[in-house]
Amino acid sequence: MAKLEGCFMCNDPMFTEEGSGHPQVIARLDVSKAILNRDWQFFKGSTILVFQDHMKELHHLSTEMQHRFVDDAARMAAALEKTFPDIKLNHGLFGNTEPHLHWHMILRRETDPSPRTTIWEADFPNVPQSDEDFRSLAAEIRRNL
Amino acid sequence: MAKLEGCFMCNDPMFTEEGSGHPQVIARLDVSKAILNRDWQFFKGSTILVFQDHMKELHHLSTEMQHRFVDDAARMAAALEKTFPDIKLNHGLFGNTEPHLHWHMILRRETDPSPRTTIWEADFPNVPQSDEDFRSLAAEIRRNL
Repeated sequence: MAKLEGCFMCNDPMFTEEGSGHPQVIARLDVSKAILNRDWQFFKGSTILVFQDHMKELHHLSTEMQHRFVDDAARMAAALEKTFPDIKLNHGLFGNTEPHLHWHMILRRETDPSPRTTIWEADFPNVPQSDEDFRSLAAEIRRNL
Repeated sequence: MAKLEGCFMCNDPMFTEEGSGHPQVIARLDVSKAILNRDWQFFKGSTILVFQDHMKELHHLSTEMQHRFVDDAARMAAALEKTFPDIKLNHGLFGNTEPHLHWHMILRRETDPSPRTTIWEADFPNVPQSDEDFRSLAAEIRRNL
């Protein structure tokens, strides 16, 4: 797997093969790792899928790897919906701060401050989670994979 | 194809099989239609892929249809990058205002007001396009498909 020096998604154990015991880690999937988002748990369950290699863009992958990454995403989306049945999923692949392919899933609910807009157009608080909060939520989602 | 009454993406000719001559239309792809985004041309080339059927979520599609939709997206992304080589692509699948599966591609450049954030965290003007502007841009991208 291709890693880039200086990219935190290539090197921080939370995002890599190592560090599977990190509280935010939900699971290692086929070609990505699913991790609870640290800052967006106001939208409970919000998750990041980090692709296994340092790639800038989805369309730079081979067709086979695109399909496998989307299979991972669909599997995670189904698990999130099984865990929280009333959600609308928001998917985002940006890479503006770190151009290492990763897939955000943000769980929207009708009780959101602004369910008709993106979360960046809404005002929402950071809801810090303890390690135990993360472990418990990750385990709950993992059971539905 | 499954259409829903009251959904503008199911019924507005710009988004459907009809209306292929609309100025914003780039192309009909395998399972989606590629349309220039009306409001985000400050980020020149920004495009929406509208899935052919009324589906709420990507993971509600069959695996085969997920792959075909991603193939459409990768093909369009490659065409956008060929047309504008220095872009970073932002992908978004939200469906907050209209829960009909569609895929936003937003073209980011280092000359953006805020290239490290999402466009919703940045301040950018609406840059209205004439029909001729849209037709010319759509044709340029279409040549690179």
